[in-house]
Amino acid sequence: MSLKVEIIGIGNELTTGRVLDQNAGYAAGRLSSHGFQVTRIVFIPDRTREIRSALIRAGKRADAVLVTGGLGGTLDDITAEVVAKTFDRPLQLQPALKTQIRLFLKKRGLPWDPSFEKMAWLPEGVELFHPRPKAAGFFLEEKGIPFFFLPGVPAEMRRILDRQVIPLLLQDRPDHQVSKQRIYKIFGLLEPEINCRLQDLEQKDGSVQLGFYPNFPENHLTVLVRADKTFRADQLLDHLETEIETRLGDTIVGRNDQTLESVLGELLRERKMTLSVAESCTGGLIGHWITNVPGSSDYFDRGLVVYSNRAKTDLLGVPPGILKRNGAVSEKTALAMAAGIRERSRSDLGLAVTGIAGPGGGTPEKPVGTVWIALASSRGEKVGHYLFGGRRGQIKVMTAYTALDWVRRTLLDDSFLFSR
Amino acid sequence: MSLKVEIIGIGNELTTGRVLDQNAGYAAGRLSSHGFQVTRIVFIPDRTREIRSALIRAGKRADAVLVTGGLGGTLDDITAEVVAKTFDRPLQLQPALKTQIRLFLKKRGLPWDPSFEKMAWLPEGVELFHPRPKAAGFFLEEKGIPFFFLPGVPAEMRRILDRQVIPLLLQDRPDHQVSKQRIYKIFGLLEPEINCRLQDLEQKDGSVQLGFYPNFPENHLTVLVRADKTFRADQLLDHLETEIETRLGDTIVGRNDQTLESVLGELLRERKMTLSVAESCTGGLIGHWITNVPGSSDYFDRGLVVYSNRAKTDLLGVPPGILKRNGAVSEKTALAMAAGIRERSRSDLGLAVTGIAGPGGGTPEKPVGTVWIALASSRGEKVGHYLFGGRRGQIKVMTAYTALDWVRRTLLDDSFLFSR
Repeated sequence: MSLKVEIIGIGNELTTGRVLDQNAGYAAGRLSSHGFQVTRIVFIPDRTREIRSALIRAGKRADAVLVTGGLGGTLDDITAEVVAKTFDRPLQLQPALKTQIRLFLKKRGLPWDPSFEKMAWLPEGVELFHPRPKAAGFFLEEKGIPFFFLPGVPAEMRRILDRQVIPLLLQDRPDHQVSKQRIYKIFGLLEPEINCRLQDLEQKDGSVQLGFYPNFPENHLTVLVRADKTFRADQLLDHLETEIETRLGDTIVGRNDQTLESVLGELLRERKMTLSVAESCTGGLIGHWITNVPGSSDYFDRGLVVYSNRAKTDLLGVPPGILKRNGAVSEKTALAMAAGIRERSRSDLGLAVTGIAGPGGGTPEKPVGTVWIALASSRGEKVGHYLFGGRRGQIKVMTAYTALDWVRRTLLDDSFLFSR
Repeated sequence: MSLKVEIIGIGNELTTGRVLDQNAGYAAGRLSSHGFQVTRIVFIPDRTREIRSALIRAGKRADAVLVTGGLGGTLDDITAEVVAKTFDRPLQLQPALKTQIRLFLKKRGLPWDPSFEKMAWLPEGVELFHPRPKAAGFFLEEKGIPFFFLPGVPAEMRRILDRQVIPLLLQDRPDHQVSKQRIYKIFGLLEPEINCRLQDLEQKDGSVQLGFYPNFPENHLTVLVRADKTFRADQLLDHLETEIETRLGDTIVGRNDQTLESVLGELLRERKMTLSVAESCTGGLIGHWITNVPGSSDYFDRGLVVYSNRAKTDLLGVPPGILKRNGAVSEKTALAMAAGIRERSRSDLGLAVTGIAGPGGGTPEKPVGTVWIALASSRGEKVGHYLFGGRRGQIKVMTAYTALDWVRRTLLDDSFLFSR
């Protein structure tokens, strides 16, 4: 059996919905990928009774407990205080931590304030992770159960989790069974369709478990295997991968940490091709995604956000007559945009999108969600028409994703000859 | 006392960290803004024992329970089944729901499959919300406690929550005390600084509570007040707002649902001014944000993502000599980009950013995170130099945010005269 971990997120911002959790979700992902079983995630407000009861219950149910948040200097940060009371370990001053906080404030020219002193008082007998200001995580063992207390600042939480907590947990693990998982990111198939094609791969004995998770606009498939040895788990995953690829084909965009834009970047780099983009309704989102990949300047030359008609004519040479006769959201305009961006940027590929993201601007002939996507290459051009549902943000995302996925599929199809 | 609500999110995708929660956080925000008190949010896997125990415990602690997820047709969706067992209400076929599912499949050309039938079986005595396929939420009362079961698909969950669950809860509420809150979005002050300036506004009796929540790159401040009448709560909030505005000045970017880009859009619209943007390291993110606002085409003319040096020269007229002597990331290049985009787009304002987002490309003189921002208007130009920390994604966000915030502050300062 794998080690059971419970995660507790402390903070009014979580229970009032002011902040969407970034910590517990991240920790759950990292712990699961190492084969630990996260049995519960709980968010509670900064209130003594709730924190106390959550700590006690988690300690009874789980093999290890991870707590984030409530370690800062403001009034509502009471985690350390409640831990002290709950586990009967009086607060003690941590001199090293206090010094670090002083240095931090001095560097930023901030005055010392008693609220900072508070951050340096921690329960007796704890072990400190990285004595850094705003990020002083600590560890204690209570009745044989390890409790990890991490700061709520996501970057610091992640650093301590990855560098200190997970290595500590891995040391202790009773390694009878190995769990490993792979994730496939799928675009263009509905969840029931994926389910229909794959469900017979699942094994009742728990050795192969499939999970389906919508992650707009992708669907994610998780394949979790259990085996007695790491190499057997890997063999099983490889075998399943061949099967899954046969059944799902190029609807698989990527696997594990790959993203559509990182996969696309690899394909362009391998082929020594460059891409430029002309965006209307997506407003820059396609360029933003492409440039999320380090080194994207190797294949991404430029992006134009041509929101006005004049910009389409000035920057891409779209003839005013086409805009007048066909409208800015039309097949002809999309094609002219793609050809224009390709020629003017002297890139190998020119991608263009134009559409109506709403909520205004729709007509009976061209309702909100109407989108044209066009791609131009040295060998010709292609164009597609879509009608996407949802709100402005979703239409932007569907348009940007579909457009980049078009380029991916086009590059994968080595025999492609553009034709209309 | 306000009504206590517990939220339970069901799904392996949550406890394995495959999907970051969008539902519970949203529900917590909506419930809190209506004055309900969310006392706990729990995520559990799709497993009978965990679901059963979470339902029973929540029913004992809270006045109402909201459950999301596990209502789909795949094997791992077992919420309805476990509810049936836990509350001793056998599953019954819901004919209206079955018909809806049939119609849905027919429309999409999908074959009928027993897995869809399963979605139409719900516990005895429940009340159905909107019998829609993939979104069949339902309601039941158990020992006087209302339980709301909503689908995990975020758009459907939100629709049912807002249109049906919240109105139902509001009907029942024992209305002794009114809670109201306002949120302020702050940029450019650290949390301890905000705390120092405001902490005396908090009242020990709970009538005024402040919360501080980092929401990168903003800090959010929540002001929650309680009073016996709605108008008194509003008066108190108005009084506090005047005080907070005096103390925080123009570091307040917006309030409640306002975003930096919506506030900026309003300012441009009021002044009948247009803006165009030239982006290098942000790759389109600035344009993406601006165009998230419906109607942004009224003031946003175009955006250029000039990733290559050639694009900077071709599209913005940045002299090759400047690029050669000063580099692409330099004061002179930023100024030339801003002037170029303003002139060529004939916009009132031209905004430009150029920087090194990393992880590669840094040098000792220009380390990763070095950014120049420039703004050109008819009255002159200004330019600023920054060094941002963090990873590629954070540097992009800080650059884009800082640049748009510059424009906001510039527009607010009516007396501004650009000068260098």
